[in-house]
Amino acid sequence: MAVYTEIDDDQLAALLSRYDLGPVLSCKGIAEGVENSNYLLVTGTGSFILTLYERRVNRHDLPYFIGLMEHLAGKGLPCPTPIADRDGSMLNEVAGRPCAIISFINGVWPKRPTARHCQELGSAMARMHLAGRDFMRQRPNALSVEGWRGLLGSCLADADSVRPGLAAELQQEYDHLKSNWPAAPGRAGDTPLPHGVIHADLFPDNVFFIGEALSGLIDFYFACNDYFAYDLAIVLNAWCFEVDGAFNVTKGRALVAGYESIRPLTGAEVSALPLFARGAALRFLLTRLYDWVNQVPGALVRPKDPLEYRQKLKFHRQVQGAAAYGIER
Amino acid sequence: MAVYTEIDDDQLAALLSRYDLGPVLSCKGIAEGVENSNYLLVTGTGSFILTLYERRVNRHDLPYFIGLMEHLAGKGLPCPTPIADRDGSMLNEVAGRPCAIISFINGVWPKRPTARHCQELGSAMARMHLAGRDFMRQRPNALSVEGWRGLLGSCLADADSVRPGLAAELQQEYDHLKSNWPAAPGRAGDTPLPHGVIHADLFPDNVFFIGEALSGLIDFYFACNDYFAYDLAIVLNAWCFEVDGAFNVTKGRALVAGYESIRPLTGAEVSALPLFARGAALRFLLTRLYDWVNQVPGALVRPKDPLEYRQKLKFHRQVQGAAAYGIER
Repeated sequence: MAVYTEIDDDQLAALLSRYDLGPVLSCKGIAEGVENSNYLLVTGTGSFILTLYERRVNRHDLPYFIGLMEHLAGKGLPCPTPIADRDGSMLNEVAGRPCAIISFINGVWPKRPTARHCQELGSAMARMHLAGRDFMRQRPNALSVEGWRGLLGSCLADADSVRPGLAAELQQEYDHLKSNWPAAPGRAGDTPLPHGVIHADLFPDNVFFIGEALSGLIDFYFACNDYFAYDLAIVLNAWCFEVDGAFNVTKGRALVAGYESIRPLTGAEVSALPLFARGAALRFLLTRLYDWVNQVPGALVRPKDPLEYRQKLKFHRQVQGAAAYGIER
Repeated sequence: MAVYTEIDDDQLAALLSRYDLGPVLSCKGIAEGVENSNYLLVTGTGSFILTLYERRVNRHDLPYFIGLMEHLAGKGLPCPTPIADRDGSMLNEVAGRPCAIISFINGVWPKRPTARHCQELGSAMARMHLAGRDFMRQRPNALSVEGWRGLLGSCLADADSVRPGLAAELQQEYDHLKSNWPAAPGRAGDTPLPHGVIHADLFPDNVFFIGEALSGLIDFYFACNDYFAYDLAIVLNAWCFEVDGAFNVTKGRALVAGYESIRPLTGAEVSALPLFARGAALRFLLTRLYDWVNQVPGALVRPKDPLEYRQKLKFHRQVQGAAAYGIER
């Protein structure tokens, strides 16, 4: 939960004067999101989210993220639409930060996802993968193998203080994945798997539901071009484990069934899932570990437990094939 | 900024099933408020604030606070109205906390209050004082002289670590106020000054405006029965000093003019203001100092600087009369 940047009255008025949204009726900081500052903005014409992009988001990536939301919303995907100002610009600046105003999406994120939620998510993700196919911008996945190497290097010295033996485990896992991971799509040595725009961070707090019906996908700030099956592997990690660490195969089956109701997986994708699931677990283990060992005193965000992903990684390492995730072929 | 208690899906559904508010469309934690957890709740019938009362609020006081909001809103004061469930109850429980759903008030709080804001606030506060006159419940001010003694006792040992000499200053100021402070209204030794329900915490973040027009007073969780002029003294402290510590007499004059446009101050109230302003400054100095020396590692709220109120207190100590606040008689 975080609002890093406060906006004063004059700054907000100056920003809104660029748009045709009517008078400001309310502007409240939202205690959600970790990377950016988000405000729920109510104006004479409706409700919006005002996002201020903080340091961890690279400004050069913003046109990709904003353009992607516009593209996907234009295709009817339930995701926020960026609002253009009178000059047609969807990116502005307030309080010294780049910012965007996007449409407000109704719904609440599921604190305890059910199999039904997983199924809805699977089909929405497949729709997103298809809708992104003719999006023209490209953004490589900065948090794939190359990115893991950098994270590993900066965490390795502290890893054993979090859990004895963790450093060796991480190094071993990285070495295995490095040797087996396909090159990025389109690069020499890539794998003939379907690829395109992936969300790359579809955790439950980025997926809204009204009752059990999915109402929105939000927070596209890790979106990039990569293998579709890797996006599915991230979601298997994020949605299908129980609090006690057990993998819930019913949820896995529901997730994949939802996905395949829109886009059937190829045999090669099914075969790649166990490896991709290991990679996804290492990716979140490493970023959480980085945040854990680099805690700033007085920070407004409590870092998440990295060891949750160590446990998930252990599960994926002993998996024999995609059947463990509920995929029978 | 804080949301202390998360609400899970089933808990929210169970709570809302008691009300006739339609389906939940959104429920987002708000990064405002220090004492309680607040959610902006959107349902099929409108927008509301769902407040979960955390430990620092005494459950026995809740009927006073809720009843007061209902009373004041019923008199047309721009403040939240508590929503009754189908059984007529305005207090319920969720996630193990007492909670209330109150109406949503449009407006934004002024980060840089102007004299015009001060004038609007003055008249709204006077209206609130008059509207509360026939509210039948009573709540003594727990943060008056007796309360200060307790706070002082628990901070004195640490005060000099915040600023050398602070402990002696606080003790001396407390002794002076203790000797000169009137007894609470209605008690033996009280003072014939107008009294009734006061808000007691009308800081800028509790007062909403649309443009320069006041749209709402919120957060009645320090409200109590005390002298009206003491409420005015709190607001002189909270609204009329500049960031550099200077008292802005134009704002003071505007505040009092707004107040007196609704309820003229008596001569005795004007005379009491310098003492009440010292007391109000000590009250916030002590509570901020308490929070400062009792910081919890990993807390979600950054404590406010207590020394800001030491500087304000110094100003009030050298004041010769209410003219210093812009009140000429």
